[in-house]
Amino acid sequence: MEKGLSVVGKDVPKIEAVGKATGTLRYTSDIFFPNMLYAKILRSPYAHARVKRIDTSKAQKLQGVKSVLTFKDVPQEPYGLDDLGDPANAIRDKHILEETARYVGDRIAVVAANDIETCQKALEMIDVEYEELPAVFEVGEALKSGAPRVHDYYVMGGRRIEPRNNIATVTTHGEGDVEKGFRDSEYIFEGEYRTSSPQQVPLERTVVVCRPEADGRLSVWSTNQSIHGLRYTICNLLGLPFSKVRANRIFIGGAFGSYIHTRFDEPMCALLALKTRLPVKLQLSRAEVFTSARRYPAILKVKMGFKRDGTLVSQKYDVTYDIGGYDVLGAWVVSATTGWTYSMYRSLHFSYEGRGVYTTTPPPCAFRGFGNPQANFAIESAMDQVAEELGVDPIDLRLKNYRRKGDLVLAQGPQVKHYIESCEVEYLLRKGAEIIGWAGRDGVKRAGKIRRGIGMARGWHASSCSGFEPSGIADTGGAFIKVNDDSTVSLVTALADAGQGELTALAQIAAETLGVGVDDVIVSDADTDNAPYDAVTHASRGIYVGGGAVKLAAEDAKKSLLDWAGKILEASPEDLELKDRRVFVKGAPSKSVSIAQVAASARINNWGTIVGKSSYAASGFAPHFTVKFIEVEVNTETGQVRVVRAICGADVGQPISPMGVEGQLHGGLAQGIGFALMENVSFDDSGNTTNTDFLNYKLLTAMEVPEKVEVFLAPSRESTGPFGAKGIGESALNDVATAVVNAIAHATGVRFRELPVTAEKVLKALRERA
Amino acid sequence: MEKGLSVVGKDVPKIEAVGKATGTLRYTSDIFFPNMLYAKILRSPYAHARVKRIDTSKAQKLQGVKSVLTFKDVPQEPYGLDDLGDPANAIRDKHILEETARYVGDRIAVVAANDIETCQKALEMIDVEYEELPAVFEVGEALKSGAPRVHDYYVMGGRRIEPRNNIATVTTHGEGDVEKGFRDSEYIFEGEYRTSSPQQVPLERTVVVCRPEADGRLSVWSTNQSIHGLRYTICNLLGLPFSKVRANRIFIGGAFGSYIHTRFDEPMCALLALKTRLPVKLQLSRAEVFTSARRYPAILKVKMGFKRDGTLVSQKYDVTYDIGGYDVLGAWVVSATTGWTYSMYRSLHFSYEGRGVYTTTPPPCAFRGFGNPQANFAIESAMDQVAEELGVDPIDLRLKNYRRKGDLVLAQGPQVKHYIESCEVEYLLRKGAEIIGWAGRDGVKRAGKIRRGIGMARGWHASSCSGFEPSGIADTGGAFIKVNDDSTVSLVTALADAGQGELTALAQIAAETLGVGVDDVIVSDADTDNAPYDAVTHASRGIYVGGGAVKLAAEDAKKSLLDWAGKILEASPEDLELKDRRVFVKGAPSKSVSIAQVAASARINNWGTIVGKSSYAASGFAPHFTVKFIEVEVNTETGQVRVVRAICGADVGQPISPMGVEGQLHGGLAQGIGFALMENVSFDDSGNTTNTDFLNYKLLTAMEVPEKVEVFLAPSRESTGPFGAKGIGESALNDVATAVVNAIAHATGVRFRELPVTAEKVLKALRERA
Repeated sequence: MEKGLSVVGKDVPKIEAVGKATGTLRYTSDIFFPNMLYAKILRSPYAHARVKRIDTSKAQKLQGVKSVLTFKDVPQEPYGLDDLGDPANAIRDKHILEETARYVGDRIAVVAANDIETCQKALEMIDVEYEELPAVFEVGEALKSGAPRVHDYYVMGGRRIEPRNNIATVTTHGEGDVEKGFRDSEYIFEGEYRTSSPQQVPLERTVVVCRPEADGRLSVWSTNQSIHGLRYTICNLLGLPFSKVRANRIFIGGAFGSYIHTRFDEPMCALLALKTRLPVKLQLSRAEVFTSARRYPAILKVKMGFKRDGTLVSQKYDVTYDIGGYDVLGAWVVSATTGWTYSMYRSLHFSYEGRGVYTTTPPPCAFRGFGNPQANFAIESAMDQVAEELGVDPIDLRLKNYRRKGDLVLAQGPQVKHYIESCEVEYLLRKGAEIIGWAGRDGVKRAGKIRRGIGMARGWHASSCSGFEPSGIADTGGAFIKVNDDSTVSLVTALADAGQGELTALAQIAAETLGVGVDDVIVSDADTDNAPYDAVTHASRGIYVGGGAVKLAAEDAKKSLLDWAGKILEASPEDLELKDRRVFVKGAPSKSVSIAQVAASARINNWGTIVGKSSYAASGFAPHFTVKFIEVEVNTETGQVRVVRAICGADVGQPISPMGVEGQLHGGLAQGIGFALMENVSFDDSGNTTNTDFLNYKLLTAMEVPEKVEVFLAPSRESTGPFGAKGIGESALNDVATAVVNAIAHATGVRFRELPVTAEKVLKALRERA
Repeated sequence: MEKGLSVVGKDVPKIEAVGKATGTLRYTSDIFFPNMLYAKILRSPYAHARVKRIDTSKAQKLQGVKSVLTFKDVPQEPYGLDDLGDPANAIRDKHILEETARYVGDRIAVVAANDIETCQKALEMIDVEYEELPAVFEVGEALKSGAPRVHDYYVMGGRRIEPRNNIATVTTHGEGDVEKGFRDSEYIFEGEYRTSSPQQVPLERTVVVCRPEADGRLSVWSTNQSIHGLRYTICNLLGLPFSKVRANRIFIGGAFGSYIHTRFDEPMCALLALKTRLPVKLQLSRAEVFTSARRYPAILKVKMGFKRDGTLVSQKYDVTYDIGGYDVLGAWVVSATTGWTYSMYRSLHFSYEGRGVYTTTPPPCAFRGFGNPQANFAIESAMDQVAEELGVDPIDLRLKNYRRKGDLVLAQGPQVKHYIESCEVEYLLRKGAEIIGWAGRDGVKRAGKIRRGIGMARGWHASSCSGFEPSGIADTGGAFIKVNDDSTVSLVTALADAGQGELTALAQIAAETLGVGVDDVIVSDADTDNAPYDAVTHASRGIYVGGGAVKLAAEDAKKSLLDWAGKILEASPEDLELKDRRVFVKGAPSKSVSIAQVAASARINNWGTIVGKSSYAASGFAPHFTVKFIEVEVNTETGQVRVVRAICGADVGQPISPMGVEGQLHGGLAQGIGFALMENVSFDDSGNTTNTDFLNYKLLTAMEVPEKVEVFLAPSRESTGPFGAKGIGESALNDVATAVVNAIAHATGVRFRELPVTAEKVLKALRERA
C-alpha cells in the first residue's frame, strides 16, 4: 500500500451524504419545469407481432395531448448501441418505436400530454391491429432450425446480415489444442450450468427529462451512467450535431449497469421535446423497469481436463446467452465472457465459443459483472466439484492453477489484454480460510433439520476495458482541475455517481494530489459542454481510469502551484511538497506558504491561473481479485437456505476509500445472495413477465442479509492505478452466488447447477436424494 | 493584419442573437424559483445621518415577511473592494448595511418577503430615528478645513486611517522636473476642466438571485461582470470558503463598468438567502439604479509647456475626483488617471497628482473609460486650443507629440507599464482628416442661425491591466477547451458578456485555432466551479487577455488533435494543419482526415481525450488607438447642438469581429455624445438625486445619434495579442465628447470646459460672447 497518504486510504463520508440523508438531493425525477409534458409508452401485448394498422387520431384529439408518435414518426434506419465501440461493428436492429414487437412490452407508440392521466387515457384511445407472429422464449427453441425468426436481418457496417438460427453474434477464442489437452488429461470434468436473469432493481426508476432551450439546443437529464454516451446516441439518432444537445450529470439512485447505455427512453423523450418544443418527462413505472433491463441469462457448458495432481491442462467453454428481442449489449457480453473464462485459471489449452441468441423476450442489458458472475458460477462450481472428486482441498486446487502476477489475462474480449501486475489471490484465499475456519469446516453440523455448510469461491474483474493493445472499446478519461485562492479545488469530471461513492473517491484523489482536504474539493456540476470526455461509469473503471484522469489533471495543476510557490519561497519547484493546504520546502518545515497565499499571489501578480487538465488512457485493466467464504444453513423441511456468515476478501490495490470498498463488498454480497437464492425475472407461456412488482419479484431484503459479514482487504498496490488503486464494483458480486451454492453443496451434498437455488428446488433435490 | 484567417476577422452574428431577437434568452431577472422571496432596501432620506434608533419589530411581524436586516445583522468589520488587488491596499470603509448614511439612498435596512408589495409595506413599518449630520456635496467644499467629515476613518492593511480633508486617496507620479520644463518652454497653456457624472444606464436593472442549495452551498446569479469576483466578495464578506458559493454566469443586459464589482446588493441578497434558507431575488428599481452607479466626476487642471514649433516640453496634471460617500473604485480611478494623462503625449517633464475626495453623494464607480474620457476631455481640449493659439494645425500638433511605437506608456497606475508595440495613430489621423475633409474645414458655414463646425480628438485605452512588471492588479485569464467527436468544440471561459459580443469573439478565436466554424463552438455555461479563474470582463481586456487565454487553451487541444491525426495520416504533427474541420498534411491536400474522425478515433482507440487548458497572463496592455472627427450644427437661437456626422477610426490590431468592433464604435459614439451634450446625474441642495427616470435624465436616444457615421479600422497587428488583436471597448468612447466640444469651438469660437455642454450653457455662452 502507498505510504504517507492523508486523504486517500481514509474513510470519508460521501460528498452527497447530507443531501441524501435529508432528502434534499435532487434526482432526475425531482426535475420539474413550467409547461412540462409527461410521456407514456404504448407497449405490445404480444411477444411477437407486426402492427398491421395503427390509428392515433382519437388520441391526438384528446384535450391535453400534445404529441403521439408511432414507428412512422421515428428515424427509419435501424440503430445499434455504438457509443463505446467502432460504429461499423454495431448490430443495428432497433428503432425508437417499432413496427414489429419482439417482446411483450415492446414500444409501439408514445404519447406526450399535460399530465400522466391524460397520457394513460390517450394510450387507451390508440387503435392498433396486430398481426401475431410466432414467438420463441428459450434459446434452445430459438436455435432450432425452423424456429421463428426474431429478426429477419440486422444491419452492420452498412450491410444487411441475416442471423442464422437467431444467432446474433458469436465470439471464439482459443490457445493450444483443447482436444489434445483432454487426451493429455488424467481426469476430465464436464458440466452444464444455467444462470438466471435478475433485475438490477435500482431504487430510482428510469426517468428522462428533455428541455428545448431558447438557443435551439436540447438539455437532457437522465438516469444514465454516461453523459457523453447519452449525447452521442441522441445526436446520432436524431441527426443533431453535438453542439445542439447538452446532457447533464445528475446523481442516480442506483444503476448496476442498467443505465450504461442510452437505449430507447432518452431518444424517445428527446424526439417528443423537439416535436412539441416543450420540456418532457418520461418516467417508467416499476413494472416497466422490470421489463426494461435484467441480467443476460446463460447456458454454460464447461469441460476441463486435469492431471491427477490437480494441474489444469485444458479448458473448453461453450456459452449461450439469451439476448432477448434486441441486441443491447449481447455481442459485447458474449465477447467479454472470453476474458471472464480465460483469466481465472492457467491451462496450456483453452477454447471459448460464445453466442448470443435472439428470443422474443425483453432484452437484457449490462448488470454488475457483465457475464462474469455467470462464468464464475460455472468455473467455480466446477472447480469445487473437481477438488472433491480429485480429493484435493478446493483452496489448494485454486492455488495450483490461478493466473497470477506476470500472466496474460483477457477481459471484455480476446483483444483486451493485460499482464497481471498486482495479485494477492494467495493472501485472499489463505486469510479467508483462516477467518472462517476452513480447516475445520467439516466439523459444522451437516445433519438434522438445519444443516450447515461452508463454501467458497474466488473471483475477479477487470478495472477497465483497456488493454495494452487497442481494444476497440472507448475507455479514455479526462478531467479539469482548478485551484481557488482559498486553497479549495474545483474538479470537473464527466463520471456519474449512482450511489457507489464515485465522486467522493475522485475528490479524495484530487485532494491527496494537491495536499488539501476532501472538503476543500468542489465537485462541479458536469455536463457535456464543460466536462472532458470520459467514457462511462461502468466496467469497474471509475477509480482506475477516471481516478487516473483526475490524478493526472491534479498533477498538472500542482505543477503550476509549485512553480508559483517557488517564486514566493525562493526555491526550486522540485524541492517543494504539498501538505495540509500548504507548500513546504522539503526538509525545511519552517519554510512554507499556504496554497491560498500562492493562489492569491498568482492571481494578483499575474503569474497565471492555477488549472490542470488531463487526457488519460490506462495501459491495461488491472484485475482486482476477491474471495468469498460463506456459511449457510439449509432447512431440510422447507428447503430454505440462509446465509449466516460471509467473509469477503478483496485485493483492490490501495483502496481510495476503505469504507467505500467495504460498502461495495456488502452491497455485492447482498446482490449475489439474491442472485444465488431467489431473484429472477420470469415469464409465462405467452411471454408476459410474471413478476413486475415487489410482491412477486423476490428481491433480497435486509431480512435475508447475513448478520455476520466480515470484510478484509489484501495489502496490495497496483503500480498502474492512481495511488496504487484498482476497481471493485463488479468483483464484489461476481463470486458470491457460487460460494453460496458451494456452501449448499457442502451442507447437503447436492450440487445445484441452475440459478436461483430456490427453496422449492432445494426441497425437491433433498427429497430426490433421500 | 493576419493572413489566411477563416473565422477571425469575419463578421459573425452574436451567438446569442436569436435568443435576444426572440426574447427567449434568459437574464437574471427571468430567474424564478419556487418559494422565492423578494427583497427591498430601506434607504436613507438624508445625505448624512446616523441611525439613533431603529425598530423593525412591526415589520418583522407583517404577514409574508421572512427577514429584516439592519446594520446590527451584518458583518461589523468594514470592507473594501479587494477582489482585483492586494487586499492590504483596499480602502475598507463600508458595510452591507450602514449605521451612518453617507448619501441620500444609502442602505439602512433590507426586507425579504413573499412579494415585493409586502416588502414595500414592511419598509414603511420600520421605525428609524436619524441624527442628521452635516453634509457636503462638492469636492471644493469637502476639501476645506473644517468641512464635514464623511468618514472619520477607514481601515487599510489592518490600520485605521483618518482621511485629512476628506481625501481618501492620492496618487502622484513624475518624470523630469516640470517646473524646469515650464521654464524651458516658450509657450505655456493652463486650463481647468470639469467633467460630469452620467449614469451607465444598462438596459437591465441591477438584479441578484441567491439560492441556498441542498448541499449547504449558495448559488448566485447576478448582473455582474465577474463570477470569480462575485464569489470572492461574497465569501470573504460572509466568511464562507469558496467551496460553499457558486456564482453562475448569465448574459447581462448592458453593464458599461457598473457591474465590474460586487458592491452591496449581492452580499445583501446572499445574507438574506442564508438567513431564510430560501431563494431571494433583489432587483433595484430604475430610480435605485440611477443612484447606485455613475461616472466619477473630475476637476482636471492642466498645465502644458511647449516650444514655439509645437514640441511639448512639460506637462502637469492635477486631478480631483469626487468619489462620493464610499470608495468603490475611487483609489483606482485616481491611480489610473496617471496612465491616461501620461500616455497621450511625450514630454521630457511630466507630473501627475490625483486625489479622490469623499462627499455625501452616491458613490460613482467604473464607467467605460474609467477616468480616460475625463482625462481626454482635458488633454484633447487643451491640445486643440494650443494648436489654435500656436497657429499649428491640430493634427500636426498631435503628430509631433504623440507617444508611438517603442515608447513607454502607463495604464491603470504608475506601476502598469508597457512599450508600445503597434501604433497606427498617424494613419488614423490622416485617414480621418481625409474622410471628413479636414483641409477644407474652415469652409463650413460658421455664421447665421445654424452654425457648422468640425472638430476632432484622438484617444486611446489599454487592452488590459497587465504591464511588463507586476502591476498588483489581477489580470490573469484561463480557459478549458475540448474537442468532441463530431468536430464541435466546447469552450469554458469565465468571462461575462454584457452585449458587446465577448463570447462570440472568444468562440471565433477558438474556432480559428482549431480550424472549425464558429457554429461548431459550444460556449459552455460557466460558473465558479467549472471555469478557470479569469479576472473580469472589464478594462477592454476581454479579447486581449481572455482571447489570449482561449487561444492558448485551443492550441493545447490542437496539440493532442494533431498528435492523433498524425497516427492516422502517418505524418509528423508538425507537418499537419487544421482547416475546414479537417486535418491536412501540409503541401499534400489529398492527404487529410476530418477532425470528427480523429476525435472518434482517439476515443475508440484509447489514445486519449482531446482537451486543452490555459493559464494566461499578458505581458503588457497593448494600447489601442482611436480618432473621432465630428461635425456639429449649433442652433444659435436655442443653443442646441446636433452631431451631424462622425468619423470613427480605430487601431484595434487585427479585429476579431469587424462588425463587433464597428458596433463598439457606434455605441461608444452615442454614449460619448450623451456625455458631451446632455447626460449627468444631478442633485438638489439636500443631496437628492433629481433625475432618476427617463423623463428627467436626458439619455441620448436614436433621435440624437448622427445619421452619418463612418467607421474605419487601421491596418494593424499587435504581436502580443491573440491573432494580432487588441481591445476596443473603452477607447470607442474616450475621445468622443472632446471631439464634439472641439467641433462646437470650431462652430462658435467658444471653448467649453465643463461637461455636459447643454443647450442652456451654449445659449448663455453665445449671448455672453455676442
